Formats: sequence, C-alpha cells, structure tokens
Amino acid sequence: MGTKKKILAGALKLFNEGNTQAATTNHIAAALGMSPGNLHYHYKNREAIILRLYEEMQAQTELEPQERPDSIEALHAHMSHLAHVYWTYRFFHRELLFLLSRDPELKARYIRDNLAHRGRIVLVLAGLVDNGYLQVPYDNVLEHLADTTLLATQFWIPFLETLGDPLDEYHLEGMFQHVQGAMRPYLTPKGLKALAEISA
Amino acid sequence: MGTKKKILAGALKLFNEGNTQAATTNHIAAALGMSPGNLHYHYKNREAIILRLYEEMQAQTELEPQERPDSIEALHAHMSHLAHVYWTYRFFHRELLFLLSRDPELKARYIRDNLAHRGRIVLVLAGLVDNGYLQVPYDNVLEHLADTTLLATQFWIPFLETLGDPLDEYHLEGMFQHVQGAMRPYLTPKGLKALAEISA
Repeated sequence: MGTKKKILAGALKLFNEGNTQAATTNHIAAALGMSPGNLHYHYKNREAIILRLYEEMQAQTELEPQERPDSIEALHAHMSHLAHVYWTYRFFHRELLFLLSRDPELKARYIRDNLAHRGRIVLVLAGLVDNGYLQVPYDNVLEHLADTTLLATQFWIPFLETLGDPLDEYHLEGMFQHVQGAMRPYLTPKGLKALAEISA
Repeated sequence: MGTKKKILAGALKLFNEGNTQAATTNHIAAALGMSPGNLHYHYKNREAIILRLYEEMQAQTELEPQERPDSIEALHAHMSHLAHVYWTYRFFHRELLFLLSRDPELKARYIRDNLAHRGRIVLVLAGLVDNGYLQVPYDNVLEHLADTTLLATQFWIPFLETLGDPLDEYHLEGMFQHVQGAMRPYLTPKGLKALAEISA
C-alpha cells in the first residue's frame, strides 16, 4: 500500500472510531508510526484528507447511466451496496453538516454532487415506471420519492442517533426499508411481486 | 426582561446568525454589554444556555393529550406552529448532531424526548385513522409515517443545506409538504377533501 493510501486508511479508522475533530493530523501520523512532516508532505491538512475520503466514497456510489437500476431487484442490490459503502465511511454522514460548515470547497462539491444524485434518482424512478414496477397516479410523486430517498440516505445515521439506536450495518439498512415503505403504495402487482421475492 | 431571559435572547440571536462554536460566552456577554462574570453568575457555561434554549423550544412544541391534532386541519395548524418554532430556534436543528455529541446530558434528554415524541406521532396518526381521514391497508404504515415525520422535522434544515437551498421560513415549510406527500396515498376521500381545502 502506498503512503497516501496508508494515510487515508489510518485516518478513516480514527474518524470512524472517534470523530474528525479529535483526530488531528498529528494523531493520524502517530497512529501510523509516521512523522507529522511525512504526513503533511502527502496531505496539506485534515481537510484535504477528508475531501479525498469523500471522493473515494462518492466514486463507489455513482453509477454510469447503463448501470442504473432498472428493476426493483437491481435497485435493492444497489441499495445494499450503498449501505455497505456508507458504513465503511460512516464518519462522513455522522458529521455531514459539521464537515460542510468547516470546508466551503467540500460543501460546494457536495451540493453539486447531491443535486446531480437527486436528478439520477428521479431518472431511476421514471425507469421503474416505464418498466411497469411503479405507477404514479398524480404529479410530483417521483419528486416526493426522490426527496424521501435523499433524506433517508443522507440522514439515517443521525436519525439512529436521535433515537438512541445502535449504529451498525444492520440498523443502517433500515434506510432502505424506509425507502421501500415510501414506494410501496405506488408499486404495481409486478412491483409488489418483485419486492415480496426480495423480502422472502 | 430579566437578566436570564436577556442572556437567552442574546445567545439565540448569535447562535442563529452564526454558530454555537463561534459564539462563546464572552461574545454573548459583550453583545449584551454585560460582564462575563455577570453572565457566568446566571449560566455556568454555553452548554447550560443551549440546554435551556432547547427546553424553551421543546416546551413550545409538546402538546397535552387533549390538544393533539384530531383532524387534517388541526394537524396542519400544528405543523405551521412547529415550523415557526423551529425557525425561531433554527441553530438547534442546524447543529443537532454536533450539539448532541458535545453534551451527553443534552443527548440523553433529546433521545428521551424524541422517543416520546415518536410515540405521540403514532397516536395522532391512529386518531386520524379512527376519525376517518386515513386508511392503512397493511401493517406498519403508521410506523413508517412516524419515521417520515421525524426524519423530515428533524433534518429538513440540514436537507435544505445539502441541496444549496436558502434557509428561510418559507423553505422550512417544505417539511410539511413532504409529510403530507407521504400521507397522501393513505388519505380517505374525507382526508383528501380536508387537504384540498387547506391547500386552496
């Protein structure tokens, strides 16, 4: 593993176990048995490490147009993948608003990515309508479901905290039960059958 | 206005305009033309001020059993009231997770209040079923709608930030359109009529 990757892995571990404020670059360097100077040679500061970890996470969640889920089954598989990625980088959503408030560059990037993500969610949902899984009886249902998806995926970790629930990979998957619950009244018989087969 | 109230009002203003970390007790005292010693006589530290502001907000949102909304119209009125209270204390939800991470006493209190709040939401929804506004075709719809309500009300301010939307009282009301959107597929004709009259 190259030094840059080692630093990212060491920082990620400290961020996940504690929080980003407690883990200074000196702490990260010490945990890796590395001099602070060597760490700073690779990453200017903690913000640069956090931004790079965000980019890594983001790269694992974005889909090319041809990879976008076109069935309930594919959507479920994608969501399981997402839950795993979000768990791997759990410090990020746990501290989301705080991190955005500390770094204008990260904030601008995050908002841009998030708006693009919202647009892709609407496209995926429209595809599920085209493929006969969903039926939307009135306007703005897709927009509503996109908001539900964004709220759940971005804030499920904080949500668990506000309920005193344990933060583990199992509880994190609750975000998808929530999204499925919101989609449920709009599922066609074909959609309901697909969902039942997944849950079985 | 007594000194304690003056301190709370001054702190709330600074917290809303900037953030709680930037507004030290020295800043709050200076903004009020008061000595730090005088402020500390009334409030031991910033955490004590934040906790007291939380209690004020909480007292304005909790309802006695007999005041709980028993119709779509009453629920709408209660939500408008809530939006106004949340706007008044907007620093709190903007920094929610950060504040909870800094003060174990606040966190324990918040979780306890939030679980009780969740229970009351389910009761209000069950009342709307009893009164013919909602119809729930399968299990756990009320639990799902309670989660939706908690997610939306707690995280709408962060949600607006992650979309780059302005944070103002108008945009904050989006949280209720979101909750209404989630309830809509379960509304009876009576419920739909009540909702249409509100929106008109």
